[in-house]
Amino acid sequence: MNSTINEWLSHPLVHTVWKIALVVIIFFIVRALGRKLIAGAFNRSIRASQARLKTLKSLTQNVFSYVLLFIVAMTILEILGFNLGPILAGAGVVGLAVGFGAQGLVSDVVTGFFLLLERQLEVGDYVTAGGVEGIVEELGFRTTLIRGFDGTLHYVPNRNIANVDNHSRGNMRALVDISIPAGQKLDESLAMVKEALENFSHPAIVSGPDVLGVESDDLATTTIRVIAKTDNMEQWAVEREIRQAIRQRYDAFSQSENE
Amino acid sequence: MNSTINEWLSHPLVHTVWKIALVVIIFFIVRALGRKLIAGAFNRSIRASQARLKTLKSLTQNVFSYVLLFIVAMTILEILGFNLGPILAGAGVVGLAVGFGAQGLVSDVVTGFFLLLERQLEVGDYVTAGGVEGIVEELGFRTTLIRGFDGTLHYVPNRNIANVDNHSRGNMRALVDISIPAGQKLDESLAMVKEALENFSHPAIVSGPDVLGVESDDLATTTIRVIAKTDNMEQWAVEREIRQAIRQRYDAFSQSENE
Amino acid sequence: MNSTINEWLSHPLVHTVWKIALVVIIFFIVRALGRKLIAGAFNRSIRASQARLKTLKSLTQNVFSYVLLFIVAMTILEILGFNLGPILAGAGVVGLAVGFGAQGLVSDVVTGFFLLLERQLEVGDYVTAGGVEGIVEELGFRTTLIRGFDGTLHYVPNRNIANVDNHSRGNMRALVDISIPAGQKLDESLAMVKEALENFSHPAIVSGPDVLGVESDDLATTTIRVIAKTDNMEQWAVEREIRQAIRQRYDAFSQSENE
Amino acid sequence: MNSTINEWLSHPLVHTVWKIALVVIIFFIVRALGRKLIAGAFNRSIRASQARLKTLKSLTQNVFSYVLLFIVAMTILEILGFNLGPILAGAGVVGLAVGFGAQGLVSDVVTGFFLLLERQLEVGDYVTAGGVEGIVEELGFRTTLIRGFDGTLHYVPNRNIANVDNHSRGNMRALVDISIPAGQKLDESLAMVKEALENFSHPAIVSGPDVLGVESDDLATTTIRVIAKTDNMEQWAVEREIRQAIRQRYDAFSQSENE
Amino acid sequence: MNSTINEWLSHPLVHTVWKIALVVIIFFIVRALGRKLIAGAFNRSIRASQARLKTLKSLTQNVFSYVLLFIVAMTILEILGFNLGPILAGAGVVGLAVGFGAQGLVSDVVTGFFLLLERQLEVGDYVTAGGVEGIVEELGFRTTLIRGFDGTLHYVPNRNIANVDNHSRGNMRALVDISIPAGQKLDESLAMVKEALENFSHPAIVSGPDVLGVESDDLATTTIRVIAKTDNMEQWAVEREIRQAIRQRYDAFSQSENE
Amino acid sequence: MNSTINEWLSHPLVHTVWKIALVVIIFFIVRALGRKLIAGAFNRSIRASQARLKTLKSLTQNVFSYVLLFIVAMTILEILGFNLGPILAGAGVVGLAVGFGAQGLVSDVVTGFFLLLERQLEVGDYVTAGGVEGIVEELGFRTTLIRGFDGTLHYVPNRNIANVDNHSRGNMRALVDISIPAGQKLDESLAMVKEALENFSHPAIVSGPDVLGVESDDLATTTIRVIAKTDNMEQWAVEREIRQAIRQRYDAFSQSENE
Amino acid sequence: MNSTINEWLSHPLVHTVWKIALVVIIFFIVRALGRKLIAGAFNRSIRASQARLKTLKSLTQNVFSYVLLFIVAMTILEILGFNLGPILAGAGVVGLAVGFGAQGLVSDVVTGFFLLLERQLEVGDYVTAGGVEGIVEELGFRTTLIRGFDGTLHYVPNRNIANVDNHSRGNMRALVDISIPAGQKLDESLAMVKEALENFSHPAIVSGPDVLGVESDDLATTTIRVIAKTDNMEQWAVEREIRQAIRQRYDAFSQSENE
Repeated sequence: MNSTINEWLSHPLVHTVWKIALVVIIFFIVRALGRKLIAGAFNRSIRASQARLKTLKSLTQNVFSYVLLFIVAMTILEILGFNLGPILAGAGVVGLAVGFGAQGLVSDVVTGFFLLLERQLEVGDYVTAGGVEGIVEELGFRTTLIRGFDGTLHYVPNRNIANVDNHSRGNMRALVDISIPAGQKLDESLAMVKEALENFSHPAIVSGPDVLGVESDDLATTTIRVIAKTDNMEQWAVEREIRQAIRQRYDAFSQSENE
Repeated sequence: MNSTINEWLSHPLVHTVWKIALVVIIFFIVRALGRKLIAGAFNRSIRASQARLKTLKSLTQNVFSYVLLFIVAMTILEILGFNLGPILAGAGVVGLAVGFGAQGLVSDVVTGFFLLLERQLEVGDYVTAGGVEGIVEELGFRTTLIRGFDGTLHYVPNRNIANVDNHSRGNMRALVDISIPAGQKLDESLAMVKEALENFSHPAIVSGPDVLGVESDDLATTTIRVIAKTDNMEQWAVEREIRQAIRQRYDAFSQSENE
Repeated sequence: MNSTINEWLSHPLVHTVWKIALVVIIFFIVRALGRKLIAGAFNRSIRASQARLKTLKSLTQNVFSYVLLFIVAMTILEILGFNLGPILAGAGVVGLAVGFGAQGLVSDVVTGFFLLLERQLEVGDYVTAGGVEGIVEELGFRTTLIRGFDGTLHYVPNRNIANVDNHSRGNMRALVDISIPAGQKLDESLAMVKEALENFSHPAIVSGPDVLGVESDDLATTTIRVIAKTDNMEQWAVEREIRQAIRQRYDAFSQSENE
Repeated sequence: MNSTINEWLSHPLVHTVWKIALVVIIFFIVRALGRKLIAGAFNRSIRASQARLKTLKSLTQNVFSYVLLFIVAMTILEILGFNLGPILAGAGVVGLAVGFGAQGLVSDVVTGFFLLLERQLEVGDYVTAGGVEGIVEELGFRTTLIRGFDGTLHYVPNRNIANVDNHSRGNMRALVDISIPAGQKLDESLAMVKEALENFSHPAIVSGPDVLGVESDDLATTTIRVIAKTDNMEQWAVEREIRQAIRQRYDAFSQSENE
Repeated sequence: MNSTINEWLSHPLVHTVWKIALVVIIFFIVRALGRKLIAGAFNRSIRASQARLKTLKSLTQNVFSYVLLFIVAMTILEILGFNLGPILAGAGVVGLAVGFGAQGLVSDVVTGFFLLLERQLEVGDYVTAGGVEGIVEELGFRTTLIRGFDGTLHYVPNRNIANVDNHSRGNMRALVDISIPAGQKLDESLAMVKEALENFSHPAIVSGPDVLGVESDDLATTTIRVIAKTDNMEQWAVEREIRQAIRQRYDAFSQSENE
Repeated sequence: MNSTINEWLSHPLVHTVWKIALVVIIFFIVRALGRKLIAGAFNRSIRASQARLKTLKSLTQNVFSYVLLFIVAMTILEILGFNLGPILAGAGVVGLAVGFGAQGLVSDVVTGFFLLLERQLEVGDYVTAGGVEGIVEELGFRTTLIRGFDGTLHYVPNRNIANVDNHSRGNMRALVDISIPAGQKLDESLAMVKEALENFSHPAIVSGPDVLGVESDDLATTTIRVIAKTDNMEQWAVEREIRQAIRQRYDAFSQSENE
Repeated sequence: MNSTINEWLSHPLVHTVWKIALVVIIFFIVRALGRKLIAGAFNRSIRASQARLKTLKSLTQNVFSYVLLFIVAMTILEILGFNLGPILAGAGVVGLAVGFGAQGLVSDVVTGFFLLLERQLEVGDYVTAGGVEGIVEELGFRTTLIRGFDGTLHYVPNRNIANVDNHSRGNMRALVDISIPAGQKLDESLAMVKEALENFSHPAIVSGPDVLGVESDDLATTTIRVIAKTDNMEQWAVEREIRQAIRQRYDAFSQSENE
């Protein structure tokens, strides 16, 4: 009997059917496991909104399933006795062509994935990235759209984004350098600047403005630096107001002196 | 009987014919499926005009069919007992040569495809791309033609286009920096600028012009910034008009003072 | 009888001869088909002069024929029972060496092909390409010869040509920026410039000259911009004439004022 | 009997089972050894805090285990008689794609690992790295977050970090260059600077300030250099105080001279 | 008898001898054909002097012969029953090392070949190539020697030579920009320049000098451009003479005015 | 008997054991030889201190041993009848990943090795390397630590170090350029500078200071160059002293003239 | 008997011994031939001193012998029935690692070889190479040591040396540009310069000095160029002397005029 089973088992057709069945079963097990693993990894590591999470998860699961399907199809074809050399060679040629030309595309998607995952950019942020500056309008897997302050719409391929300078994460600093003629006495100038800022206030100011002191001093100009902490995106307005306040004080001072 | 069938099945010639038939059938099934998938993908993801959509779709379908045909031809040759080594080696050498030299070409086409798909550029847009600035005259799969403002026609290979700065998507900003001598009183200067712009109007202005305030202030010059939102491509005309208006007001002011 | 045929068919020598014959037949069919396809592709896609078209077509057909011949020779040698490993390895080593060193050469030819095909450059055009500016003297598959305005002959390898700025495709723009002292009244200056250009004419002018307005204005200088559309290559002469006309008007004006 | 054992041993099924068992045993041995080696290497070479040490160690051990598991799975499948060509080809294609696109990602992680291991950066350090300057906010395996002084949050991919300039490792130098008019006598100027700094003191100063001497001297300006060693991050405050002290002395000196 | 021949033919030793003989015969045929083809290609495409032509031709023929010899030696060794794996692997390792390190060398030779073939440079030419400027002293397959005008001898690896700017191919242009104070009347200045050049002559001048007109005009300076066509390498002398002539005329003019 | 031995020898198990034994023996011989060769190479070519020599030697020997061990383990597994395809494929995938990502790491170590071997840098040297300048604090296989003069600690990956400019190898040159007004007579100025330096001395001066002569001379300034050879790291102090000496002489001279 | 020999010849052990013997014989023949060829190539192409020639020759011969030895060892191991897959794979991994990391090293040696062979640099030459300028102190296969004029010792990896500017090959040019105020008459200035140089002589002058003429002329300055040919390394001294001579003449001239 042992011999009969062996014989039956070693019959080529039975062997083939048995092997294909096994491959298909393994396929479904691996596929289920893989999808679960991917889902788990996503659920653990992503803190993004539910909608985007689902897009990312299903994209990854689909790519995984297609690769698995390709492998299983190849395996079954081979079990059926086909030589896969030509198919694999054809796939290799296509892959090479894609590899050469679409290198940038894959690189875009990988970078885009991490930009989303690490939330480096979000729609509405004021950022400097890929050599352009402006407000993020759209985040794509391949391109990021940034609206410059002059109204230009910048299409930045994600791979071009190396450093991201996000100016919308936390308070900003207003910095004003005041030039006074080197001929004028330093103590008077410092007093004047402090006086001008004594009653200065602006709703966007978080702390300051503080007169830091003499930033640079040469024969022609003495520069006094003033800084303040402000609400996000309000730094320019505050800087302008500080400049105006000091200038007005200076105008009054010059007038009184000339008289 | 079983034995007879087995014998017949294992006859080499029968085997060969049976295999080729199977390959051809699989070829037609895969080809039909693939073309349908491609068509579906295109119909879903492209929002371009019908004409361009059809060109793209048929191009992709043709490339897919040729690759499939090559694989099937190779498989049949091998079933007939030919060694494919030399053919594949020859194809490899050609592929290598193409790969080395035509890398840029493939890269052009891939980039061009996405420029079209994402509609980053359209004929007539005023853009900055690949280091040149001007109006898009033609969009090709390999080259984009941009007409510079001095009349030069720029041929830009698509791979050279990384960032696209499209200046024709939405309103633009007119920005004028007015320099006033540092000796002049700030309050008077601000008043004068505001006065000059009080009755200023231009058909292309969407909002503004607004006097932002003191942009910079050193010993020699005080700079006052004025901005406005304008219709697309009208920003330069508006800037010129604002400059002229303020200058005229300033001329009048100087005259009255000198008298 | 069936058995006899089978036996005869399976005789190694007969088999070999039969296979070589088949290979040769396939060779001639594929060669004819390939050459026809290439010719068709050329006839459809090239709009160049007949002479250049024929050079390109026959070059491509020859390369195709040599590759095919190499594959067939290899296949026949293998059918005769030779191991092709060493030949292919030798070819691989040569290919590697060529690949490393001649990468630039292949790249030159591919780029040159497209420069011709897309007619980006033609002999006699005034262009900026590959970092040099001048008149195209010769278009080669490997190098483009450009004659600079100072008489230098530039040999530019085609691969160095990325963007082509062709200044000989359509009308050009003459642009003159006139600096007037900031102390002078704007309205008077504008009037003077307009007066100077009222009767200005030049055979190469297509439209204009138009006084655009105040291009920039600071404490030292006010710049007024004048533009005109001119015939190709005549823009510099027109610019010089415009400058001269305005300067002469200005000289007259200053004189009258000083008197 | 010998023959029976041999026969039994060479029975395919027994052979298969025996081989798989061996593979599994070797797997567990190698895995245990490898994990121990990794743990040992970590315990010896890392001087980081316990928490981070554990993360790094377990990450490396997991990668090691997964690679081993993949190899064992492949080996068992092959012992069972499957051809692994398709699977390995599929893995190769995926690997190629990842290799092309994710090159930067792997590079980020490797660099990040060494940044941590060599403690080049720590949270709170003031550094210049990857083209940005600021206080390190977060150290990741892929990105480093640096908070610029103007409030901007910089996301720097680790691969972009080549040189790390860490300004928080040891005392810093305050350097002040004083410009004096070339017309003034050098000895008097040097005396004045020394006088001004005689009683100068600042809690953050470690040594100095020392007057180095004449740093440069041309027809217009003579520059005298003063340096001091200060506590970390206090160099700018010290520099400002030194500048102020010297300027005040100079003001007094000018006044006395003018009278 | 048929059987005896077959038997004899299939005797391994006979087979081996027969195969080696065939290989040697094919070797001589291919070698002769290849050398003829190379010689023909050279005779057709090279227009260089006979001496250099022969060097190039024999170099190419030798490389071709050595590669062929290597392939034949490998084939014979394999027919004798040696496994060529190790030799080919060894050759591959050496090839890889050479490929990595000597990439530049191969690139030098390929570029040098085309520099000679296309006669871009010839000994004695005044050129700008590879970032240096001077007279070509020697043309090598690896390096080009250029003697700078200050006496320095520049060794330029051929691969560094991308664009070649050859200043010794045809007439050159002498260009002189004359600055006149903006206060002076334009018509008088133009007249003066034209007067100065009326009787100007120089043996190296081919055509001109022509007064082009007002090249630029701002508040401080008006620039008048004069150009002439001169013999090669004489442009600087002509420019100096033109400058001197105009200056002398200007000196006379100023004197008469001051008196 | 011969037959018995042959039979015994060809018994698979005996064969296997015999082969493994041979492999192990070869392993130990090659390992001993290799380690001796490495030790010899080190003893001959390294002139570094004993401690560092030993580290380098044992590191190289360990790497050699591990590679050998891996090869032997693979060989034994194969003799035992395992297919190594999966293991080698796994190793290849890991190698590829490492190759892509850790390229920089290997490059760091190789460069670091030669920096040590050729003693280009030593702790305490004042160098310019990898774009930073300062005193070498630590030499590692991966990173070099350089302390800048402002107190910053620079971590420079060794691969970033191309040129090493070592300022601590031999005497240095002090160079002072003295600007004198062009209006002053040259002979008097030269005399004054020589006079000032006649009695100049400084313990760090090795030779000089010598007045070289007129370095440049235009309408505004005449520059006289003075150089001296000084002890290492003392060049700046000497330069300052020379500047001071000349300035003091000049002050005296001006005073005498004004009186 | 024929059969006995055949049998004997086909006995595996005899076959093995016979094959190994053949391999060893071929090894010695190829090695002797190769070494002779290398020696011949060196004797023909190198014109360096005997000592360096021998070093280069023996280095190349040793590398050749080691590669050959490796191939022979591999071949013998395979004849003995070992599978070389693992060894070659191990060698491949090491080769890959070396290839990635040591690419620069190989490149250094190849470049260094040609620097020596073509005698581009010699110890004591004053050169500009790899971005540094100075006197060559040492020529190595990996690094070139250049002593800068300020005393710094530059270690330049040979691969960094692209262009070599050798300033010690032939006479050098001294070039002096003299600025004269634009207000002064040109003829007088030229006369004065010529007068100053009439009796000028310097032992290092080979020809000249010649007054070339007016190099540039704008509203502020007229520049007259003087050149001379001098001995190597003496150009700076000559330039200084020329400047001094002209300046002294100018001083005398001004004095006479003022009186």
